[in-house]
Amino acid sequence: MAESDDRSAEERLIARYFRPLATAPGALALDDDAAVVAPPPGCDLVLTTDGVISGVHFLPDDAADGIGRKALRMNLSDLAAKGAAPIGFLISVALPAPVDEAWLAAFAAGLGDDAARYGCPLLGGDTDRTPGPLSVALSAYGVLPHGTMVRRGTAKAGDVVVVTGTIGDAALGLLLRKDASLAKRWRLAEAQAAQLTQRYLLPQPRNALAEAVRQHAAAAMDVSDGLAGDLAKLCRASGVAADIDAGRVPLSDAARAALAAEPALLEPILTGGDDYEILLTLPPQRLAAFAAAAQAAGVAATEIGRIAAGQGTRFSRDGKPLVLARPAYSHF
Amino acid sequence: MAESDDRSAEERLIARYFRPLATAPGALALDDDAAVVAPPPGCDLVLTTDGVISGVHFLPDDAADGIGRKALRMNLSDLAAKGAAPIGFLISVALPAPVDEAWLAAFAAGLGDDAARYGCPLLGGDTDRTPGPLSVALSAYGVLPHGTMVRRGTAKAGDVVVVTGTIGDAALGLLLRKDASLAKRWRLAEAQAAQLTQRYLLPQPRNALAEAVRQHAAAAMDVSDGLAGDLAKLCRASGVAADIDAGRVPLSDAARAALAAEPALLEPILTGGDDYEILLTLPPQRLAAFAAAAQAAGVAATEIGRIAAGQGTRFSRDGKPLVLARPAYSHF
Repeated sequence: MAESDDRSAEERLIARYFRPLATAPGALALDDDAAVVAPPPGCDLVLTTDGVISGVHFLPDDAADGIGRKALRMNLSDLAAKGAAPIGFLISVALPAPVDEAWLAAFAAGLGDDAARYGCPLLGGDTDRTPGPLSVALSAYGVLPHGTMVRRGTAKAGDVVVVTGTIGDAALGLLLRKDASLAKRWRLAEAQAAQLTQRYLLPQPRNALAEAVRQHAAAAMDVSDGLAGDLAKLCRASGVAADIDAGRVPLSDAARAALAAEPALLEPILTGGDDYEILLTLPPQRLAAFAAAAQAAGVAATEIGRIAAGQGTRFSRDGKPLVLARPAYSHF
Repeated sequence: MAESDDRSAEERLIARYFRPLATAPGALALDDDAAVVAPPPGCDLVLTTDGVISGVHFLPDDAADGIGRKALRMNLSDLAAKGAAPIGFLISVALPAPVDEAWLAAFAAGLGDDAARYGCPLLGGDTDRTPGPLSVALSAYGVLPHGTMVRRGTAKAGDVVVVTGTIGDAALGLLLRKDASLAKRWRLAEAQAAQLTQRYLLPQPRNALAEAVRQHAAAAMDVSDGLAGDLAKLCRASGVAADIDAGRVPLSDAARAALAAEPALLEPILTGGDDYEILLTLPPQRLAAFAAAAQAAGVAATEIGRIAAGQGTRFSRDGKPLVLARPAYSHF
């Protein structure tokens, strides 16, 4: 078409790989300066942003399909923990030259599949070339009834502390990715090692629980920088303390097997990142209703401790205090 | 404080440099997973994203203060062209190690000053270290009455074509930054060269005209990739053609002086990027009202041509057709 010939290479890349993902009418087929959405009446808008950089958040040879998914799911996890229903996302992709179109096609395919799966369409974006590593910045948006966003800073003494899914799998999966021989040392079956690695590569955000979190939680956040460090953030924001029984922290069979073989793994399990589970506190009388909602959604929800007056987080195991060397992941 | 000691280096960087910018209540002092805003009833939300990378969009030795401003203003320019009033922004900053805190302090100071100037507060963000160049991805949000966002694709044959401010200054400014000796060749006074360079370093987005654009424009977009290329995009999206008198394209005194000394500069003036002016089309009977609003806002608004049936953009000068070698800037 004559029209196509007028377009820049940048416009053609966007049209080919990203336009198919822009299914929302307000994305205007990525053909405008901006996107437009009409938030439902009486709803607040929830905004979050999180990105991934090659060599920092993923390995350069990780499958492109999974990288788009991971970037979107990291942000979906934040929306879930806040109790918000996703409405869409913006993406900013910096690509090293020359552009690897096969990579881009796989990246966009994974991203598009997840956008459909989670009901979170692409609204707009920005592509640039970079002299540095490939990087993706993504911002996602959700909605919920006015004034009902679940915060970190609203936990109360007496609340029970609950965590969804299982903790530590992704941290162990990353260790396995860096050194495959660990699987043998940890006496893991091949399938168990693969399961841990997969949890690192592809988070399972708990958006199916967002509405239950919104209805029942006193405070919540997603676990992305390690359970211990994220709990410390929640307690600090709320001005409370927490007592956690490490023996009750939910582990997958694979993580449990690795921990039995190497007890020192308790530290990376409790402090490693990339869990993308929800950490929440609830008044005790809300626990049964939340547990029922979690069961209906097919997601485990486990009580791991209590919020108390004071400050600081205290982990114990078999009744004895547990001291963690490095409380949380930090990029700096 | 005991609390501070628990925080990671990442949390401390955010608290020190970015929290002071998070003046909106819904930013929750950057202490939560997400921000929350309540869009005004009956309003649509307008979303845009654009970023800058060191070595691509700015030079490594550009002043840090201006880089935050430029990233925000690029996005504010998109909101202005769509007729939206800004409500806030998210930022994602990737920093090379070791973190240069003096750089970060100046960057945040510029960003914060502009956030206050344009009424567009920081809502949230994400910081990461990167093995690559410093980069900033920024997403900005605006609001306007439901259904009134001004699009690119709605220009009609018979509309007049108007552009705000002056065109080409930033493109000439970038050339001067790369080769200071050009100032002499172009016979520019020092102040003129500085003025062009400043237009490249610090866009002047036309948010003061957003409401007038919304009320009067048939179609609009911001001029960021060069007037000729951006006009071609607008015409393609609208299914129309345009006839532009290059002699009427508004130039600053400095650009006019440079063009007189070197007539070949007409090409970069018309096709270079970074103008951050608004290109709009209006029914002729709306022109006087828009011009009055522009005058009241202290921004020039110049009629440069007409929209016609058909397709393609035709530039002329002194009644003769003008052929441009390279219609628009592309990153690829």
